[in-house]
Amino acid sequence: MSAVVVRAMFRSHPEKPPHAESISRCIDACFSCVETCTACADACLSERDIEHLIACIRLNLDCAAVCSATGSIMSRANKAGHRQLLEAQLANCIAFCRACADECARHADMHRHCRVCAEACTACADACNDMLSAMRMPA
Amino acid sequence: MSAVVVRAMFRSHPEKPPHAESISRCIDACFSCVETCTACADACLSERDIEHLIACIRLNLDCAAVCSATGSIMSRANKAGHRQLLEAQLANCIAFCRACADECARHADMHRHCRVCAEACTACADACNDMLSAMRMPA
Amino acid sequence: MSAVVVRAMFRSHPEKPPHAESISRCIDACFSCVETCTACADACLSERDIEHLIACIRLNLDCAAVCSATGSIMSRANKAGHRQLLEAQLANCIAFCRACADECARHADMHRHCRVCAEACTACADACNDMLSAMRMPA
Amino acid sequence: MSAVVVRAMFRSHPEKPPHAESISRCIDACFSCVETCTACADACLSERDIEHLIACIRLNLDCAAVCSATGSIMSRANKAGHRQLLEAQLANCIAFCRACADECARHADMHRHCRVCAEACTACADACNDMLSAMRMPA
Repeated sequence: MSAVVVRAMFRSHPEKPPHAESISRCIDACFSCVETCTACADACLSERDIEHLIACIRLNLDCAAVCSATGSIMSRANKAGHRQLLEAQLANCIAFCRACADECARHADMHRHCRVCAEACTACADACNDMLSAMRMPA
Repeated sequence: MSAVVVRAMFRSHPEKPPHAESISRCIDACFSCVETCTACADACLSERDIEHLIACIRLNLDCAAVCSATGSIMSRANKAGHRQLLEAQLANCIAFCRACADECARHADMHRHCRVCAEACTACADACNDMLSAMRMPA
Repeated sequence: MSAVVVRAMFRSHPEKPPHAESISRCIDACFSCVETCTACADACLSERDIEHLIACIRLNLDCAAVCSATGSIMSRANKAGHRQLLEAQLANCIAFCRACADECARHADMHRHCRVCAEACTACADACNDMLSAMRMPA
Repeated sequence: MSAVVVRAMFRSHPEKPPHAESISRCIDACFSCVETCTACADACLSERDIEHLIACIRLNLDCAAVCSATGSIMSRANKAGHRQLLEAQLANCIAFCRACADECARHADMHRHCRVCAEACTACADACNDMLSAMRMPA
């Protein structure tokens, strides 16, 4: 539902941002990842084997922080300017999402929340990567 | 999609939080509202009649801040404890969402992004209200 | 240093917000509390007796989220309007700060970071309370 | 005051993070920059020549988002691991702070809040740069 709403927002933006479809999917993947990482950190806090999950909790919180920043920055990305900043933010977000996906994947057999979170982080990295590709194509 | 993921997270939470369905919908509505308010603030910044939209931009940013806090707090709301804090946070979030929905509704005929945003804010207020009701019922 | 900077910002705000001194102190206390709660949550994650600190970690993260929202909302509080929303946000922030201060105080003898954090939370609750009082006085 | 508190937190962190002094200053500069950028965006919204300040408002909000993420990520940076992620986050933060400082500097003669904000952004970029240097030195 949410991606539909974001898409409707961008279609009604007065500047008609280029790549509206990629931006919408990117923003929505970022905020989905914030949700999932925040919930995974909390589920990890309740696990009995918490001592094996400390690194996972920290990466979950880091990834949620970066994805939240990326989602709000991409919501303002309707201008050609600052392309280098946007590319740096997206590349940075991809790095945190992949690191968090790798860490969660290590616990995916034991903890279903880690498996779901690894998928959300991978989906966010992919959406940010598609956004990067779209930005590098002629509008 | 996102609500499905959050629901999957809560089903796999070791503490099996009560009201998992209401919590999932509440969290997802909060982050959808963050997305929409952030995008609406930016769209307003590009409008020609920006001088009539300053209050709307401020409320959009305020509402995004409150909904982001509510979404992450509700992600940790799996314990019976702190019920009063959660109720206060939800009531506060409802107040900001309704104020933002009212302000956006005033510009809904002129600006489609304000109409979409008013709907997202109302949906978030409703989901927080359902969450409050669920918390007051015996688990 | 930071409070000085915020004060300079408010003195140069074109709307000359009332209660600039109280607002500056409130905003600065909120962001100090974000810093301290975020650092305390992380220090708790490294403690050997982490199983006794799970509630503390969750309250630290909740308190950081609420104080971050309050700090940014108060930065936009230069208009008379929305006084009820501001009062609700401040009251809510005070409740989370006091709950977090109480929880941290329980571990203050064992963990110095909890003692420091309890002080920062109490200072933030006091600054928000002063702000509430200032708002209720004639400007 | 705030830097003193953060320093006290890090001294009491059970993992005794290396470079505690650089980390404390970096985190504090990040949250100071969040405060200043958020306040500058709001002051710009009240200026008569707002149409010349739209890019400044957007960069202020972007910079606040990145600095908030950096401040919380550096609060969890007590482990040797993930050094590449931390370096990428710091480099990204420096880029946003410098871009925001440049944009604010363009309006510094007209608007004192932009001058104050340019200084806070430059101070944050410097503190992040010092942190990067400290990380590259043997602990």
